Amino acid sequence: MFEFQFMGTGNAGGVPLWGCDCPACEAARLDSNRQRRSCSALIRTDEGITLIDAGVAELGQLFRFEEVRRVLLTHFHMDHVQGLFPLRWSECEQRIPVFRPDDPEGADDLYKHPGVFEFRPPSADFETIELPGFSLMTLPLIHSRVTQGFLIRHGDWRLAYLTDTRGVPEQTMKRLQDEPVDELVLDCSEPPRVPAPRNHNDLTLALAVWRQSGAKRLWLTHISHRLDLWLQQGGELPDGVYVASDNLVLSPDDVA
Amino acid sequence: MFEFQFMGTGNAGGVPLWGCDCPACEAARLDSNRQRRSCSALIRTDEGITLIDAGVAELGQLFRFEEVRRVLLTHFHMDHVQGLFPLRWSECEQRIPVFRPDDPEGADDLYKHPGVFEFRPPSADFETIELPGFSLMTLPLIHSRVTQGFLIRHGDWRLAYLTDTRGVPEQTMKRLQDEPVDELVLDCSEPPRVPAPRNHNDLTLALAVWRQSGAKRLWLTHISHRLDLWLQQGGELPDGVYVASDNLVLSPDDVA
Ligand SMILES: [Mn+2]
Ligand SMILES: [Mn+2]
Ligand SMILES: [Mn+2]
Ligand SMILES: [Mn+2]
Ligand SMILES: [Zn+2]
Ligand SMILES: [Zn+2]
Repeated sequence: MFEFQFMGTGNAGGVPLWGCDCPACEAARLDSNRQRRSCSALIRTDEGITLIDAGVAELGQLFRFEEVRRVLLTHFHMDHVQGLFPLRWSECEQRIPVFRPDDPEGADDLYKHPGVFEFRPPSADFETIELPGFSLMTLPLIHSRVTQGFLIRHGDWRLAYLTDTRGVPEQTMKRLQDEPVDELVLDCSEPPRVPAPRNHNDLTLALAVWRQSGAKRLWLTHISHRLDLWLQQGGELPDGVYVASDNLVLSPDDVA
Repeated sequence: MFEFQFMGTGNAGGVPLWGCDCPACEAARLDSNRQRRSCSALIRTDEGITLIDAGVAELGQLFRFEEVRRVLLTHFHMDHVQGLFPLRWSECEQRIPVFRPDDPEGADDLYKHPGVFEFRPPSADFETIELPGFSLMTLPLIHSRVTQGFLIRHGDWRLAYLTDTRGVPEQTMKRLQDEPVDELVLDCSEPPRVPAPRNHNDLTLALAVWRQSGAKRLWLTHISHRLDLWLQQGGELPDGVYVASDNLVLSPDDVA
């Protein structure tokens, strides 16, 4: 058994955005399937669950302690780590390993009081980590804080999870081109916009990265209410480009 | 209209604690009325809502932007402020004032990126703040971080909200004795315990503060699963001492 699931597909404010009455936010209030939590995902195997980022607040209700085998952090912005703060006070003896980029600050007092979490030595860029049922390679990204994406391999299937980022570094692009992925999950916080955002992709940048990478499919994530509104108002995406949604599962078995 | 409501009555890990299968945590999983979120409260008047601490993650679902008139922070530990991180990205033009103790660090990057929140100059100890429908006085507490409680006055009714703290400073005790309160809401993280916890009250310390203060009633808050377990197993409280619970309302009109 192996599956990748989007847990959250929203930007830091999420959808609906607090206090916003735009048509996209109003639609999300009426239909929970349109809501977008903090950007995060998970991998489910026979061994248990690997969390990719931890910005969703209700992790403790969604997952039993025993099933969470590890956490992979892309970076230490609060929208990607805030869910760890209450969980750390668990009094279980078992420690949950946390893989992370080389960010000596971390978030607030998380390094000082890690509780049940065991922060592994920082992962180098392009480091391969072998795990039961899959492997991953860290890919450096371009963001306001040191950030790594993950190239996830299960058998012949490849998924790249790249958020938060604005474009990608040359070496990361080369790695993607060397071994084109089936599924490219990519930061696309904004609709096409001039100038492009400073620390995230807009749709124009996301499409350019996708085309250059040779990936089969592109999944947009880290989505703002502005991108949802643009789509709601008729914005069109090329074939092979999909908008991710919370709880959506991508599984190698789905691939024709 | 004036009422005080407990929003959360748990310690930093909450009840149920993640991964714990003690009888208190199991009972809380079966009965949501026994669950305890991050320690916090609110005051509701005709004007709207004043939040006292903001550790509850789902603030954005519980309250509309327009009704939140201000936030009072006791201190900057994550279990008291974590709910502000997603809300700050609201794009409303209105700013929400945040009253706070003099802690130059704040929490993570909250001072750097306050978003819709407007941090007021730090409140001095024993400062009186007049607000529509009530007033409050800041009372210094004893904790691992600079922390203030609040003496809340509405007409003749007095409530002191004192968490997180281990005992209270002499000057704060004197203030309480000068004007004994109807309701003393007090940190009581642990059942009677030797040695007492370092930064919080156990029940022994909480009762001592209550008796010395002359307060009519004592409400225990910031409760751990250990205190709940102790109560579940027959631990007894003196007359006039109550265990707070999430969503419970205290209103001056209830007072005989
Ligand atoms: Mn982000
Ligand atoms: Mn970020
Ligand atoms: Mn606390
Ligand atoms: Mn505290
Ligand atoms: Zn909106
Ligand atoms: Zn327990």
